[in-house]
Amino acid sequence: MPQEQTIALDAMGGDHGPEVVIPGAAISLVRHPGLRFVMCGDEARIRPELDKQPALAARTRIVHTPTMISMEDKPSQAVRRGKGTSMWLALEAVKAGEAHVAVSAGNTGALMAISKLILRPMTGIERPAIAALWPTIEAECIVLDVGANIGASARQLADFALMGAGMARALFHIERPTVGLLNVGVEEIKGADEVKQAHAWLKETAGLPLEYRGFVEGHQIGQGVVDVVVVEGFAGNIALKTAEGTARQVGQWIKSALTRSWVSKLGAVIAQGGLKALKEKMDPRRVNGGTFLGLNGIAIKSHGGTDALGFASAVDLGYDMACSGLVVRLATDLAAFHHKLGEAAPPAGT
Amino acid sequence: MPQEQTIALDAMGGDHGPEVVIPGAAISLVRHPGLRFVMCGDEARIRPELDKQPALAARTRIVHTPTMISMEDKPSQAVRRGKGTSMWLALEAVKAGEAHVAVSAGNTGALMAISKLILRPMTGIERPAIAALWPTIEAECIVLDVGANIGASARQLADFALMGAGMARALFHIERPTVGLLNVGVEEIKGADEVKQAHAWLKETAGLPLEYRGFVEGHQIGQGVVDVVVVEGFAGNIALKTAEGTARQVGQWIKSALTRSWVSKLGAVIAQGGLKALKEKMDPRRVNGGTFLGLNGIAIKSHGGTDALGFASAVDLGYDMACSGLVVRLATDLAAFHHKLGEAAPPAGT
Repeated sequence: MPQEQTIALDAMGGDHGPEVVIPGAAISLVRHPGLRFVMCGDEARIRPELDKQPALAARTRIVHTPTMISMEDKPSQAVRRGKGTSMWLALEAVKAGEAHVAVSAGNTGALMAISKLILRPMTGIERPAIAALWPTIEAECIVLDVGANIGASARQLADFALMGAGMARALFHIERPTVGLLNVGVEEIKGADEVKQAHAWLKETAGLPLEYRGFVEGHQIGQGVVDVVVVEGFAGNIALKTAEGTARQVGQWIKSALTRSWVSKLGAVIAQGGLKALKEKMDPRRVNGGTFLGLNGIAIKSHGGTDALGFASAVDLGYDMACSGLVVRLATDLAAFHHKLGEAAPPAGT
Repeated sequence: MPQEQTIALDAMGGDHGPEVVIPGAAISLVRHPGLRFVMCGDEARIRPELDKQPALAARTRIVHTPTMISMEDKPSQAVRRGKGTSMWLALEAVKAGEAHVAVSAGNTGALMAISKLILRPMTGIERPAIAALWPTIEAECIVLDVGANIGASARQLADFALMGAGMARALFHIERPTVGLLNVGVEEIKGADEVKQAHAWLKETAGLPLEYRGFVEGHQIGQGVVDVVVVEGFAGNIALKTAEGTARQVGQWIKSALTRSWVSKLGAVIAQGGLKALKEKMDPRRVNGGTFLGLNGIAIKSHGGTDALGFASAVDLGYDMACSGLVVRLATDLAAFHHKLGEAAPPAGT
């Protein structure tokens, strides 16, 4: 029996709006028949798309609004003028308990600002983080923060470790996920002060719901040495985009290597079974969705330019997160950790 | 007529010492017949290797020393106890004007610390940076700082831009290299304060010997959108290692895609011409060598674990840098820039 879970969708978000959001939701519904949707946006644009997807229509409630956040709006404008927009209503559905998760392909800065305003940070959390799924050689890991904030204190980095572990538990079904701190070297002497302090806390605090593995370096992320990689948002965002860019670059090299002569082309045709599997592995739509962690509810940001298949990945992610009861468990874990930190050393202002 | 250039080698550096350094130098000498070497290290280990390379032996002067820096020495230990070691003597040869560039595959932290001590930072430069060559779709770009320091002030970032431009001029033979500042978004509103301030200076200062192109993001590095990418060393090191790791990861995927069945293997055999070109493009030995910029002399760090072919790339890089007269030109450029900054706004403490 599949779990029933309701997801709120910002139907207008992204470069294509309902034309991608609705076919994407339909793909995800086939995979997860327990899904229901609250779809926020312009009914005149939603209805024709939904008419093409009767199974989805039967499990969708439309919340009509004529307004939406544009990709150009600054976060501060979005907060001031965003009330009643499709993004705002999707987040309010989560706050009201009508949906477990909100998914939007809209403006990232606006989504973060409005999520913080509506869902509010969890007790003891100063700043939420954005977590990304990162494909590794054999599977996937979670990297956070990939751009919610620039810089992070030791306390924030340690909180990110617990948040990431909570997400890994939800998605990978591992009770004690392994966690590493991203640094420029594996020797304990290296790294910024806040990274060293977070390292000390994670290493010395007993009974954490994770297995702390120390420092990891950039090249180890894709090797899958840990389930969760923690880093402040500036370096994390650069690492994520650099990895995406490198994968695309190598993809172009592969393509030109296999099309440079008719002999190469023939070889590629014969090897197409293997190359198809490779192409699927490297498909960026397979892991789409940045998860905002640290709020009283889950919001997921899909790439704005993705297609229905990519948007479906973000909805799948939302479904898995909803099923896991992540927010409740994380609140307990964070409270216990902060209590221990308080006993060990006052973390305020660190 | 090839230019005569002398390079000082730390013959003992790296995982293999003279067994890699000497065959590597021999490979580079074939490519650059104007090379001469000052080879610092244990003569008893150098001599047998050199005997196998008569052409190299004829252009090499050995400076014997029984001591060396180990890979485990901390930078502070290296500075205190490093005098007279093979690394130290190679850098002293540069300082004394006997060599134009020093190349070592030894301990990075030690090489940086001893280089700073012996060569001294250029006038007006607080901290040197490590610059890396980064393969792009069509060619290469330069990224700095990739790990000399954690964090960078606006002034340091702006200095890195000039240093990187000087290196691009030396290697790519472009009079006004294009420069971008690595950031988490292309909108001017984003980014850390020091990145924004450096952006303003680079944009507004007239007559700089470079073409400033504004912010770039992680995925644009490999696209080759600029000749030089400037970033502080924590994020830069993580970006570089993440890109290396991603390329290796995709390489493993390609391999497994082309060996998963006998049909795929057959296709790979037929396409081997194209795949060989791909393998060469992805060979990490092709671009080996981190260049320390901002000192009164050039020091190049080779990967410690590389082989002769990889070490030869670092020597080639040293030869090109030596031919360019980079240090003299850079001193002039930096002085002019600092003078302009001083007129515009006092940069002290920024």
